[in-house]
Amino acid sequence: MWVDEIKFTENRPKYIEIYLKIKDMIENELIEDGDKLPTIRKLSEELNVNKITVINAYKKLQSEGYAYQKIGSGTYAKRKEINFNFRREYSKTFKIIESKNYNFVDFTGETTKEILFPIKDFKEIINKVLDRDGEEVLLSHSTFGYKPLRSTINNAFWKNKKELENILIVSGAQQGIDICSKAIININDNVVVEKPTYGGALSVFKWRKANIFEIQIEDDGIDVEGLEKILKNHRIKALYVMSYFQNPTGVSYSLEKKKKILDLANKYDFYIIEDDYLSELIYEQTLEYVPFKKLDIYDRVIYIKSFSKIFLPGIRLGYMITPTIFRENFLKSKLNTDISTSSLMQRALEYYIKNCKWKENILLLSKEYKKRYKTMDKEIEKNLSKYVEYKKPKGGLNFYLKLKEDKISSIELFLRLREKKVFITPGIMFFKNKKDGDKSFRIGFFQTDVEKIKEGIKKIKEELDGVYNN
Amino acid sequence: MWVDEIKFTENRPKYIEIYLKIKDMIENELIEDGDKLPTIRKLSEELNVNKITVINAYKKLQSEGYAYQKIGSGTYAKRKEINFNFRREYSKTFKIIESKNYNFVDFTGETTKEILFPIKDFKEIINKVLDRDGEEVLLSHSTFGYKPLRSTINNAFWKNKKELENILIVSGAQQGIDICSKAIININDNVVVEKPTYGGALSVFKWRKANIFEIQIEDDGIDVEGLEKILKNHRIKALYVMSYFQNPTGVSYSLEKKKKILDLANKYDFYIIEDDYLSELIYEQTLEYVPFKKLDIYDRVIYIKSFSKIFLPGIRLGYMITPTIFRENFLKSKLNTDISTSSLMQRALEYYIKNCKWKENILLLSKEYKKRYKTMDKEIEKNLSKYVEYKKPKGGLNFYLKLKEDKISSIELFLRLREKKVFITPGIMFFKNKKDGDKSFRIGFFQTDVEKIKEGIKKIKEELDGVYNN
Repeated sequence: MWVDEIKFTENRPKYIEIYLKIKDMIENELIEDGDKLPTIRKLSEELNVNKITVINAYKKLQSEGYAYQKIGSGTYAKRKEINFNFRREYSKTFKIIESKNYNFVDFTGETTKEILFPIKDFKEIINKVLDRDGEEVLLSHSTFGYKPLRSTINNAFWKNKKELENILIVSGAQQGIDICSKAIININDNVVVEKPTYGGALSVFKWRKANIFEIQIEDDGIDVEGLEKILKNHRIKALYVMSYFQNPTGVSYSLEKKKKILDLANKYDFYIIEDDYLSELIYEQTLEYVPFKKLDIYDRVIYIKSFSKIFLPGIRLGYMITPTIFRENFLKSKLNTDISTSSLMQRALEYYIKNCKWKENILLLSKEYKKRYKTMDKEIEKNLSKYVEYKKPKGGLNFYLKLKEDKISSIELFLRLREKKVFITPGIMFFKNKKDGDKSFRIGFFQTDVEKIKEGIKKIKEELDGVYNN
Repeated sequence: MWVDEIKFTENRPKYIEIYLKIKDMIENELIEDGDKLPTIRKLSEELNVNKITVINAYKKLQSEGYAYQKIGSGTYAKRKEINFNFRREYSKTFKIIESKNYNFVDFTGETTKEILFPIKDFKEIINKVLDRDGEEVLLSHSTFGYKPLRSTINNAFWKNKKELENILIVSGAQQGIDICSKAIININDNVVVEKPTYGGALSVFKWRKANIFEIQIEDDGIDVEGLEKILKNHRIKALYVMSYFQNPTGVSYSLEKKKKILDLANKYDFYIIEDDYLSELIYEQTLEYVPFKKLDIYDRVIYIKSFSKIFLPGIRLGYMITPTIFRENFLKSKLNTDISTSSLMQRALEYYIKNCKWKENILLLSKEYKKRYKTMDKEIEKNLSKYVEYKKPKGGLNFYLKLKEDKISSIELFLRLREKKVFITPGIMFFKNKKDGDKSFRIGFFQTDVEKIKEGIKKIKEELDGVYNN
């Protein structure tokens, strides 16, 4: 038995030796995921050590994530990384993309190779700012961010109606979610998310050890009755929503649902974390832009705005508007996270918004993306509608497709398409329990022009033809 | 009694109404910090509600931090912000500094008004990078960071001996600590810190709900015997150290202590988080630069390097070297924190290090800071040695002074000096329990030239003259 291989020396406490051996065996699959470990009594007898020593070793295995306990049954091995296997597989895709070989179709939108922002404009802005502000651009700002940028944001996007002290500059929306999570969510707090939802937010809440409830997304936002049922039985701290072009489903909230949810927030005392990540890209006149934050009479919305997709991806910038009650919590959270956001880029963004290049560029982007949107819509309709169901998002950068029949898992489809150099995002990335996303996938056109869209969808069609006609 | 003021309506659950009322009274000091709340039975009778309703209200107060329980005694009110009062007071100082009125002496070094980096060099670098890389500078990088920068760091500082995949670019050292904490520290894990230590690290560990042990700093590093005593009785996950010019004490670790601590890390299976924040600034030949990471044969050191103080404060940049075993954890943690660090700045830093401006600038900085160091040393010696004890740090940017007699608290001294426009950092900022830092303070010369140093220390002397001669 492997127990004989454990050697005790004077260099280390005995429980550590036992822990290291078992950990090693689990990692090398000599003890398999889910295997029962020897009982404490048995192992202590075999090794001729005190029971406490074995208990300590098992405790350490547990705290490091290599074992878990079933009450009344014993301790079981757990392969730590088993859950991350797919995420790792998915990430490999981006290494291919980064290799500069452009011979693929990237429907994931996770990295950026193509950029619609004119580099000469950017150079001009940077130099104007450097000439104007001199050494100042190298100084650090207050944790809130560069004041003129916060004023400009308030003026350009909020008609100066927000308190300046509630506007906080962050290094992108992901940081916004992280800061928010650290500021208001404690261990075991209940958080509600949309089902499906953005994986990057799910990870943050999980790491914060929140209890996560998922509420089904419908065509006009989450199932509000389902939400209220949860609210009646649990104290909820926060609800995380993407109000426009929800990731991945593409759903936007109706005005009615937004108002209902705000009323519930007030009634049941919870906060709404609104992730507004690309509401600028609306392609259909019928859709009006009214974020939760604009309707927020109770001061219950934490608004997070990303500029990554619509300004510059490599320049990590975004902002948040916090309820007044949390102002100090958020400030402390930002301070603990990275002190403050890069100064020069804040100044560049301020210059850019103020001098109206902003609107120009959004128009340019909208025009190009609308063309792609129309193309993708048409191509899906023509080629894939036999196999998939979907709703038109009316804006944004993605389509969310559900396989009608259960003949292939989204992971399998992802892997097969990757072989053909077409990259999609399988649904499992968007659910708390991965198997829920097994029949859906997301394709987007952030990094694919009209020609690439046609090429990619043709390949998806060929793959599905093969699956469904066998 | 205030109980009468609670009105129940159909809009909200009863327990929320009770919670809101009590919370409001605590915030407005109508119920004071530490006051006992009515017993559950009494309140349920007075309000004519179920006991469960009151229990739920009290639970919510507790989970929101407005109340705490004493076993066998009852529930007590807690004013949430009471602990942050001083930190807020301290922060106000920086608002004065930011007001652009230069008529003060800033010994805190917490903000930057003066910069020793030539703006024309910076402009040149930025433009060279923009011309060289074009649109590429606007693209986002892999989460690891810009590969050529990581190679350059490996080459310039580590003789190419580190694995590239273990080098991770971060947005400053504070982010490094946060990412590290999220990657390896779980709730209730034990973390050891130096006593005193950097407040920004303490906050991060506290927010992560770690159990914090403090170990006294001696003249050549922490008390290693004290550390081993803790290691024998507790499973420690990590030890956070600043190997050079420890903040605030200015202590650097002896080679012997570093080796001992590394051996202990291997023996007791913990990790060393090494925060190397300004080791470039060594003013005395007798001090040699050998960080823990250079001695790290067991791969037990998480190395965090900040460039804020020695490159550009407004440009948040730093890097980490992770043990191979944690590579994926750190990557995921960075991804969840802010996806990646600003691209243009990474390219600028790479250009800057590679083209040797780096060494030039460090020499320039060292020369200026050494002058200030000598001046501050002399001025303290001449003016304050009657009242304070201190060790020469031999490098860095700060002196740590301990009051010999207990006639004034460091907070009181801070407040009085602020009136005179001299800003110091009171010792309480560096301890887990604030009262431990009541007799010490830190003064630094990051933002004070030779003349300001003389002026500031003269004012500290006058203040202490008044205190000690009354």
